Amino acid sequence: MDIAALREAHPEHWMKAAAIRTLTLDAVAAANSGHSGMPMGMADIATVLFEKHLKFDPKNPLWPDRDRFIVSNGHGSMLLYSVLYLTGYEGMSLQDIKDFRQWESATPGHPEYNHSPGIETTTGPLGQGIANSVGFAIAEESLRARWGKKIMDHRTWVFAGDGCLMEGVSQEAIALAGHQKLGNLTVFFDHNSITIDGPTSLADSTDQCERFSASGWHVQKIDGHDPVAIDEAIEAAKADPRPSMIQCETHIALGSAAQDTAKGHGALTDDKVVADAKAAYGWDAPAFEIPADIKSQWESMGERGAAAHAEWNERIGALSDAKRAEFERSFDREAPKALSGRIKALKKQISEEGPKVATRKSSEMVLEVVNPVMKETLGGSADLTGSNNTKTGDLGIFSPEDRKGRYIHYGIREHGMAAAMNGLASHGGVKPYGGTFFCFTDYARPAIRLSALMGVPVIYVMTHDSIGLGEDGPTHQPVEHLAMVRATPGLLTFRPADTVETAEAWEIALSQTKKPSVLALTRQGLPTVRTKHTTKNLTAQGAYVLAEAENKRRVILMASGSEVEVAMEAKKALEAEGIGTRVVSVPSMELFREQDEAYRKRVLPAGPVRVAIEAGVRQPWDWLLLGERGREQKAAFVGMDSFGASAPAEVLFEKFGITAGHTVEKAKALLG
Amino acid sequence: MDIAALREAHPEHWMKAAAIRTLTLDAVAAANSGHSGMPMGMADIATVLFEKHLKFDPKNPLWPDRDRFIVSNGHGSMLLYSVLYLTGYEGMSLQDIKDFRQWESATPGHPEYNHSPGIETTTGPLGQGIANSVGFAIAEESLRARWGKKIMDHRTWVFAGDGCLMEGVSQEAIALAGHQKLGNLTVFFDHNSITIDGPTSLADSTDQCERFSASGWHVQKIDGHDPVAIDEAIEAAKADPRPSMIQCETHIALGSAAQDTAKGHGALTDDKVVADAKAAYGWDAPAFEIPADIKSQWESMGERGAAAHAEWNERIGALSDAKRAEFERSFDREAPKALSGRIKALKKQISEEGPKVATRKSSEMVLEVVNPVMKETLGGSADLTGSNNTKTGDLGIFSPEDRKGRYIHYGIREHGMAAAMNGLASHGGVKPYGGTFFCFTDYARPAIRLSALMGVPVIYVMTHDSIGLGEDGPTHQPVEHLAMVRATPGLLTFRPADTVETAEAWEIALSQTKKPSVLALTRQGLPTVRTKHTTKNLTAQGAYVLAEAENKRRVILMASGSEVEVAMEAKKALEAEGIGTRVVSVPSMELFREQDEAYRKRVLPAGPVRVAIEAGVRQPWDWLLLGERGREQKAAFVGMDSFGASAPAEVLFEKFGITAGHTVEKAKALLG
Repeated sequence: MDIAALREAHPEHWMKAAAIRTLTLDAVAAANSGHSGMPMGMADIATVLFEKHLKFDPKNPLWPDRDRFIVSNGHGSMLLYSVLYLTGYEGMSLQDIKDFRQWESATPGHPEYNHSPGIETTTGPLGQGIANSVGFAIAEESLRARWGKKIMDHRTWVFAGDGCLMEGVSQEAIALAGHQKLGNLTVFFDHNSITIDGPTSLADSTDQCERFSASGWHVQKIDGHDPVAIDEAIEAAKADPRPSMIQCETHIALGSAAQDTAKGHGALTDDKVVADAKAAYGWDAPAFEIPADIKSQWESMGERGAAAHAEWNERIGALSDAKRAEFERSFDREAPKALSGRIKALKKQISEEGPKVATRKSSEMVLEVVNPVMKETLGGSADLTGSNNTKTGDLGIFSPEDRKGRYIHYGIREHGMAAAMNGLASHGGVKPYGGTFFCFTDYARPAIRLSALMGVPVIYVMTHDSIGLGEDGPTHQPVEHLAMVRATPGLLTFRPADTVETAEAWEIALSQTKKPSVLALTRQGLPTVRTKHTTKNLTAQGAYVLAEAENKRRVILMASGSEVEVAMEAKKALEAEGIGTRVVSVPSMELFREQDEAYRKRVLPAGPVRVAIEAGVRQPWDWLLLGERGREQKAAFVGMDSFGASAPAEVLFEKFGITAGHTVEKAKALLG
Repeated sequence: MDIAALREAHPEHWMKAAAIRTLTLDAVAAANSGHSGMPMGMADIATVLFEKHLKFDPKNPLWPDRDRFIVSNGHGSMLLYSVLYLTGYEGMSLQDIKDFRQWESATPGHPEYNHSPGIETTTGPLGQGIANSVGFAIAEESLRARWGKKIMDHRTWVFAGDGCLMEGVSQEAIALAGHQKLGNLTVFFDHNSITIDGPTSLADSTDQCERFSASGWHVQKIDGHDPVAIDEAIEAAKADPRPSMIQCETHIALGSAAQDTAKGHGALTDDKVVADAKAAYGWDAPAFEIPADIKSQWESMGERGAAAHAEWNERIGALSDAKRAEFERSFDREAPKALSGRIKALKKQISEEGPKVATRKSSEMVLEVVNPVMKETLGGSADLTGSNNTKTGDLGIFSPEDRKGRYIHYGIREHGMAAAMNGLASHGGVKPYGGTFFCFTDYARPAIRLSALMGVPVIYVMTHDSIGLGEDGPTHQPVEHLAMVRATPGLLTFRPADTVETAEAWEIALSQTKKPSVLALTRQGLPTVRTKHTTKNLTAQGAYVLAEAENKRRVILMASGSEVEVAMEAKKALEAEGIGTRVVSVPSMELFREQDEAYRKRVLPAGPVRVAIEAGVRQPWDWLLLGERGREQKAAFVGMDSFGASAPAEVLFEKFGITAGHTVEKAKALLG
């Protein structure tokens, strides 16, 4: 690459872009770790985008109608931190840049949502950003349809590398975006032909333009270092009604000795390499110093959005108080006042009527009362709508023809769905929930983890939550999945026992502002166990005494979901033999863990023997069986220690011994 | 669809295909569950494939040089069971067909590997089969290069539906197969335009031919009900050096009232629907009865391969005894005799030299002694070769130009890699291992579960196994992943503490015939803790006393991996205060669980207080802290209860309190 020619062709642009490159070099050298190559390769694109196109206001990083800028190749975080600093974001100082990758700094190794201003989503696990972006773009379309173009009219811009495009989730995202004709979405593909192992030709021969085109995208190929070409491509992308992919031919680690090599992907920390690169750039300022004229050009980019933001403020100010309050409530992720009453009414009705119903169906009953009063919900399913019971009649289907539709057919794309929901929730103003089989939590797992890490209140509606799924067999029967979700920090897991607990779980999940929830729901019908109405949300305590011992209390049975019925039957049998048995329903271990010790002790006193019943593995139950005043000699588990099998559900529960009879046997054995 | 015209055009073919369709209708009706649509839609393709092309011998379903037939759209299992029965596989009787989806039947809801003859891999979770097939095809290429065309020369055939192609993992598979020019791989895409939610147009607009073509595939579009077109397309696919995708325009649930509808995807059980479909087929035999002439035509297809198999037997018989033994050993998944000696020698050397080394590097040291004596290993990494230390100098790179290469650059495709490894292992004759960061177990998770469910000895080399990864931050730092893998039935998890334990873990993993293994390895250097050589493999016991108390034993410290060093330091400090402390290393909980109680009690006697130390969540440790004679009042955990952070590793261990000092503090607090 002839750096001198690039400098000469566009000298002003060049120095602005060089500011990103040199900040990256300095920060990586100071941290002695990080990724220099991407920011050095994509600096030109970022400069043109921020200078001429991106709608943003560094003084108001949460302006709802800002453009979203997503760095899907998140290892290039220094590009993002550089432009945030250069354009004048508060909370991104030069000192923050100097503290790159240090404890509690504003500048962690990869961009982290909510950690610093201007970070729209957490990226680093490859492919996530581009898949999030589909959610961002859908949110924008949906909110534009709801609130009008004056309130919501912005674009989503994505930087993505080879890694993002090799990850399968990108295909799910590309196909969904193309199908949904998300014209406000633009992806810049950093086509530098280098990955960590070496040239991309070691592992890939895909023509990415052809691939995107196959899913209905507008595609362009440009020189990613030519500011004029970049600008023209962006204009063309804006003019086209399809989502756009711009394949940018770039040089990783541009201008350094490591340019165009795998070494250039990582941390360039050698003094001479850094010095030589700066010399090639014509950059003679000391480390971490941006010459005043260059800084001021960047700051004026940052000021460009202020006027647009002020006009937007006027427009939103012109809305009625009620509308504005509703807009703000949805962006604040607050549940509407009506929610609690609706849930209570449903609970009361169910407790009185006591229907036998699968909790996936219970979930639908809840959604039927919730969706009409929470217009921000956006439901969906990964092609299991009728099985997940996620669609209510009022929603309408989101499509290119109907942007007011609130139900998304995500296709057979669990991972893409979860990642899109992270984008929806991060965007704000909408509250996403989406369904698949609980077993396919596996497919969505990388994005579910990010929901938890980001702290976005996505709701996962995971039905068919055990061997109760029946004949489809072990490939579709979750066994270890409750352990997996419960082991994940920051994630709420609910396994409700009946419709009342399902309603309570939904109420808690819908009221979260910073935590995602997983609802594990049955395929098979369950009796109503909460036959006495309480206005109080008992599920919020995580575990509670569902049925007290009638005889002298010698046994505590703990269970969740469909096994609460088993516990209740076992209690009946034990009581018939004079053995007093308490049944504790455990819809959410995380919430029980948060209760004070006095409460936990009331629910699980020392003394009685304990049997836990759950059609999953024992691992998460050791805490409640052996801990919380439990004792090894007085504890047993009824559940799974292998994969399931293909047979009718009732046969499976019998064969795997998840029955009242087996529970009674275990309890009595413990009593001696 | 004009069924009558189809019947008339190819009457013999029609009735053979109708046998698949009617067996499916009868079995699904009897089970009252299942999926009728795919077998009814793809019966013509299966018939032509089995009649004219597939190399197979029902009398010898494990013939190593057979073609592999993969039903990636595994819900269409009745197609597979039907042809296995029709062509005369032992172990697939008419009674088995009648027992479809019943307890312990040969015919579970989805095809399960090793469960019945002729099932090459477990499918059902969509996209897995097509991704496995890349491994099958690579295995064939690799073995052909090693053993010659006379011994290994077969093809891989895949049936796949819209669901498989919407799943992201299919993109990883397609791109890898195209890049590797796997010309012996053919995918039949069941283009019926229907998914569970309705028409595919609800969620997808992708031109699949264009998409496959973008990754270097040969593509064709045909009428999937025209046997002549099917045959010609197969011939063209065979003639082309690229992998082939044949887009077959088909009608789901062909000939039934549910044809071309989402209802047709599932179980057609209505008597009239079944009867009408059979009438349309011109089929008048009673349920489950195949007219003798049709059965005999199918059986003669099954006999077609016997001659080829006999010739192959002659060719393999002509090999030297040593070569044949080596061939059989590799297909029997047996470790070579030399393995044990090599491992022992390495252990001895390390115990004597006591180097400080990261266990990812230890793993490379092991591979350096193993790969030369296990020619069946096929290593690889998802673009983290230098970080995972998975490549040894002797392997060579597998590529279209060098099929003898034993190292696969999988690209940034963790899921595709894991699924391909399942295919490699299922194929037999090769032993796959592959690396990524432990955190990205998440991406590979659906395929890792299938390794365990299938019982294939794939080895996952998962490096950077904790916050010890450092600056890259929480997106790259596993916290819950040890809990996840340990919760998964049938999976062996190893977290070795030094090079000696790493060698032992590899020895165990390489000796497995039915269990996959996960090796969780550090980024950071660890001291050798096994400084006294033992020929015995101590890791095989799962947990063992690494260092006995010097003073009166009052504390047991348990730890795995990098935290064993912390435990050893804490022991030193405690002993200095006169507190006798035993250190128990726990490289594999699964293997410790398998030990008899006497041994477990010797390692973990009642009495002393216990502190477990692991840079992950506590969940899997409750068993050893509170169970196994443990007591809540005498147990504590030093580990993680949140996500990690971005900072240098040593800072993180300090900030998160995973230190000897903190361990000592906890132990002393328990002692009171």
